[in-house]
Amino acid sequence: MATIKDVAEKAGVTVTTVSRVLNNRGYISDATRNKVRLAMEELQYQPNEIARSLMRKRSMMLGLIVPTIAHPFFGQWAYSLETHASARGYKILLCNSRLDEAKEKDYIDMLKSNRVDGIIMGSHTIDVREYIHLGKPIVTFDRRIEAIPCVSSDNYQGGVLAAEHLAAKGCRSIAHICGNLKLDMLGNRRTEGFVDSLRKYGLEPIVVQLGADAFDPAEHEQVVGSLLSEHPEVDGLFVSSDMIAYQVMKVCAAKGIRIPEQLQLIGYDDIPISEWITPGLTTIKQPIEEMSRLAFNIIEKLIEGEGAELPLEHVLPVRLIERQTTRQPGLLG
Amino acid sequence: MATIKDVAEKAGVTVTTVSRVLNNRGYISDATRNKVRLAMEELQYQPNEIARSLMRKRSMMLGLIVPTIAHPFFGQWAYSLETHASARGYKILLCNSRLDEAKEKDYIDMLKSNRVDGIIMGSHTIDVREYIHLGKPIVTFDRRIEAIPCVSSDNYQGGVLAAEHLAAKGCRSIAHICGNLKLDMLGNRRTEGFVDSLRKYGLEPIVVQLGADAFDPAEHEQVVGSLLSEHPEVDGLFVSSDMIAYQVMKVCAAKGIRIPEQLQLIGYDDIPISEWITPGLTTIKQPIEEMSRLAFNIIEKLIEGEGAELPLEHVLPVRLIERQTTRQPGLLG
Repeated sequence: MATIKDVAEKAGVTVTTVSRVLNNRGYISDATRNKVRLAMEELQYQPNEIARSLMRKRSMMLGLIVPTIAHPFFGQWAYSLETHASARGYKILLCNSRLDEAKEKDYIDMLKSNRVDGIIMGSHTIDVREYIHLGKPIVTFDRRIEAIPCVSSDNYQGGVLAAEHLAAKGCRSIAHICGNLKLDMLGNRRTEGFVDSLRKYGLEPIVVQLGADAFDPAEHEQVVGSLLSEHPEVDGLFVSSDMIAYQVMKVCAAKGIRIPEQLQLIGYDDIPISEWITPGLTTIKQPIEEMSRLAFNIIEKLIEGEGAELPLEHVLPVRLIERQTTRQPGLLG
Repeated sequence: MATIKDVAEKAGVTVTTVSRVLNNRGYISDATRNKVRLAMEELQYQPNEIARSLMRKRSMMLGLIVPTIAHPFFGQWAYSLETHASARGYKILLCNSRLDEAKEKDYIDMLKSNRVDGIIMGSHTIDVREYIHLGKPIVTFDRRIEAIPCVSSDNYQGGVLAAEHLAAKGCRSIAHICGNLKLDMLGNRRTEGFVDSLRKYGLEPIVVQLGADAFDPAEHEQVVGSLLSEHPEVDGLFVSSDMIAYQVMKVCAAKGIRIPEQLQLIGYDDIPISEWITPGLTTIKQPIEEMSRLAFNIIEKLIEGEGAELPLEHVLPVRLIERQTTRQPGLLG
């Protein structure tokens, strides 16, 4: 593999001159610049970013830990994040934890060893101490930990919006399927907002939690099936992701339960498919694009040592998107 | 930040001993090993993987270039690939090209500069020469280029299965929406297989190509809308991804076209959601899990210098999954 010395020899200039061309520093005539570029091309010279990163103490790499990139919400989030990062010269190291504590810990060790400049954490099973002793910039998604900046959407309000919508549509036997409430995630506030709000209407929902792996479709189907078999009276259901809502649609189709006539359904996230399917899914829209842009902006500021005056909690607004899985208003007004 | 020398001093051993513990080489007593580990923990020592990778000329990083990780097919593919890679100690650098030639070229330069050990390419707009002069292990997904190993599923057969299914279901005015056929992708063989096969039944399908950005939902909707407005006679439609099929469902719901009674629909990929929605989508299943495992196995072999005897073309079988968007058999038998 060609070195900077080979390039200098081929171009008939000094190594310092080649280095100046590479780093765009100092005065270089166009003729010299062209000679150096030509030599680089002929030798297929590639500046070694690893060696450079050792020198400047920056790897320009960010670690991204998500439960699973196969989930469309995290897929969109990672896409948007990578778009912002690459525009600023950062690369993304992708990690899927599957909410497995050992895997999450291994990834953090790996990312530290690889000298990533910062970590964006969207998976939260490990102990708070691991975060605090990380010793490098970190932004969490949906989890508040001491002095670590956190990006989330307004989960509590999402739950409130879902409760008010189902109540206004006339639902009286209401259920809710959510992730594992033992995990310390801000997403749990969806459940709090939903339950608090329904109680104002004198309604007490059935709350069903998913297990440790909240991203296992087979478990979703089983949980949805049991709920609807054991509680055929349920006429309103709020689930904590659109992916779970699609499973509800499948189970209802098999059981002959009509949506929205017999069961009104609200999802969470508003991934694009929710608009395209029939019936279109009523859901709580998270501003994925804004959340990923904000997470990148914060980590970049932290890396550049400018994060001291940043707020620690960044909560973005959510809104309810009404489609066909909840019916025309009017029953109760 | 603690160095290996600090660890040695704290543990009261030599630097060589610490290095042996780190690399699991040579005889080390359990007592010594524990002393070293304790010192590392107390000093929060992290071995510097970047410096190590410079020494052993391996970065243990793979570049993954996909059109967009926000597309559930590529999301699942990346998830599965990362699972295999991380089990073998490899990290994945994620790149979304959005099928933009300049972005694709920038990523390849970036990955070369970062000394990734290999590249898995699932986005193909750039010139063949760029691949051949890459000078490092590469596996392509869905594109055959000279001596570069390629993983794909049997795209031609996918088209044949879709054609035979629609013909057997009695469709007589058949249309097909596919990606841009100018891109040199094996996916184009879906269209070839579909058209060739229908001609055997004396049928000539309308073929509509998407533009350069085959992953833009707004374009999908517009293309589907125009097709169904200009050709209300169409009674069978095969589209080259499940994501496009969902858009067809949305447009049909808006136009009052009943699926499958008036229009029978077949997608491609079989992402999980296709099973959950109503009506369930008849589609051609790509073996995503097997494809990603194979791609990783090949790149690992190439990196280890064992790729010489590998076949260049790895074509995995597809199958048709019949659900409710195509109707009960019988009209033509």
